[in-house]
Amino acid sequence: MLFVDRLQAHRRAVEQRLTNLLGQTSSDPPGAARLCEAMRYAALGSGKRFRPFLVIEAAALFGVPQSAALDTAAAVECVHCYSLVHDDLPAMDDDDLRRGRPTVHKAFDEATAILAGDALLTFAFEILGRPTTHADPAVRAELVLGLARASGWQGMAGGQMLDLEAEGVPQDTDGITHIQALKTGALIEFSVDAGALLGRASVAERQSLRAYARAIGLSFQIADDLLDAEGTSAEVGKATGKDAGAGKATFVSLLGGARARDKLRSLAADAVHALKPFGARAAALEQAAQFVSNRRS
Amino acid sequence: MLFVDRLQAHRRAVEQRLTNLLGQTSSDPPGAARLCEAMRYAALGSGKRFRPFLVIEAAALFGVPQSAALDTAAAVECVHCYSLVHDDLPAMDDDDLRRGRPTVHKAFDEATAILAGDALLTFAFEILGRPTTHADPAVRAELVLGLARASGWQGMAGGQMLDLEAEGVPQDTDGITHIQALKTGALIEFSVDAGALLGRASVAERQSLRAYARAIGLSFQIADDLLDAEGTSAEVGKATGKDAGAGKATFVSLLGGARARDKLRSLAADAVHALKPFGARAAALEQAAQFVSNRRS
Repeated sequence: MLFVDRLQAHRRAVEQRLTNLLGQTSSDPPGAARLCEAMRYAALGSGKRFRPFLVIEAAALFGVPQSAALDTAAAVECVHCYSLVHDDLPAMDDDDLRRGRPTVHKAFDEATAILAGDALLTFAFEILGRPTTHADPAVRAELVLGLARASGWQGMAGGQMLDLEAEGVPQDTDGITHIQALKTGALIEFSVDAGALLGRASVAERQSLRAYARAIGLSFQIADDLLDAEGTSAEVGKATGKDAGAGKATFVSLLGGARARDKLRSLAADAVHALKPFGARAAALEQAAQFVSNRRS
Repeated sequence: MLFVDRLQAHRRAVEQRLTNLLGQTSSDPPGAARLCEAMRYAALGSGKRFRPFLVIEAAALFGVPQSAALDTAAAVECVHCYSLVHDDLPAMDDDDLRRGRPTVHKAFDEATAILAGDALLTFAFEILGRPTTHADPAVRAELVLGLARASGWQGMAGGQMLDLEAEGVPQDTDGITHIQALKTGALIEFSVDAGALLGRASVAERQSLRAYARAIGLSFQIADDLLDAEGTSAEVGKATGKDAGAGKATFVSLLGGARARDKLRSLAADAVHALKPFGARAAALEQAAQFVSNRRS
């Protein structure tokens, strides 16, 4: 199967599972319709579903079928979507457009966006706590712990705080690498580790996968910076040129486009190298590393 | 031990545990100092710590020592504190004062308040996922599931959404009872159930405790409405008279003060009745029911 077809197939499966998990309007509890509608708007719009892809493919390395990884993949995507909703708020990055549509606070209102984000974050942990997500409660508890660490003050939320504080403050590549590692890297790393947990990987296997995830996490951010600097809003589906407009240091503003692209190539090589212990089984994850380096949206 | 001394002793223990869990500034990760400071500001200010009290006393019914219930109690309190931070935001209830101090978005700023709330919510699940919270991962997974259900779209977040939507819309007591059951009742109910889970209570015991928790949850809200209608800001530690000012239906506006107080008395009797199966062991929970009905702040 071609990589893009594989990505597409997982994406459809994840969106189907998210649709089932988030329910239909007809079964919403009395009065909660608006909140559920906003949660679905946030989670079921378009999106690459790249983190769910990583969960599914990392689990597949250890023989876990897609169907058994989908709930965990959906939980990770709920956290990703909640973070977009809150990051887009007027008090944060103040974005009106996301994935080519009005952001949640534009389509609904600010209070609903705050609550829909809160509820999606909470729902991720509800999913991971359910026996249907994995039969072994020890695995469920480990998934909860890992997701919480990746998302909280030591991870994504901490990174967003640093990113806000960094505006207008001179940064070097170490500084923005640190911010990225928290803001986007931690959840990407957890996505891969979640697959490994579902597959009961060994400590050594988890370490190899963690090195892979760190490389693609950083690639993801550099590619994002390139898109912001060089892409158009129509291609990317959200406002572009924002970082330069805000005088914000990025990999592109510090390294320039050519060296940023060199860095992407070397990170893709690092990622592929980290997959060596898994041999040909890791072909899809290898292709994912290339995909991240070359992405255009 | 007198009830107020018991409440005070648990409160001190919970605050000590929260202080340990939320760390000290000196050990914060580089750059995360501001977020951690805001989380501590939100969680370590004053507060009755009533939900942690319920966790500890419900667990004690089944012989669980205070020390073994404190992490779970702290997790519940993190969720309660996050909800206060987000509810106080300008886009939500727009409150400047909480527990006698500036609210988090006033003491810091809106973006920090949103992130500190997010991070406290996430941290609650991190605590519950840790092996130190309970040795049995099945108990940890059940705690996660219960807390998520009580806090999300079917619980607290859903209730806050309904409460915002209800402003200016005529409500009857059934309507506001439903909103209350979600907005404040669900987390109070979970607090008691969490103690029962820690103590491996039977299904019947959990049902009795749930009936108790439902009665005190509703009492809590009615007492709150009485304080809002009749208390002064200095007594209550936050703005009062807000509900009447916003034309919002409350138990007091619908029933009047005298019938609201009758309702409190009958709910206290219901709560005490539900504790019958536990005999004298449940003395502290009985006193808690009286305390809720009579509270003055």
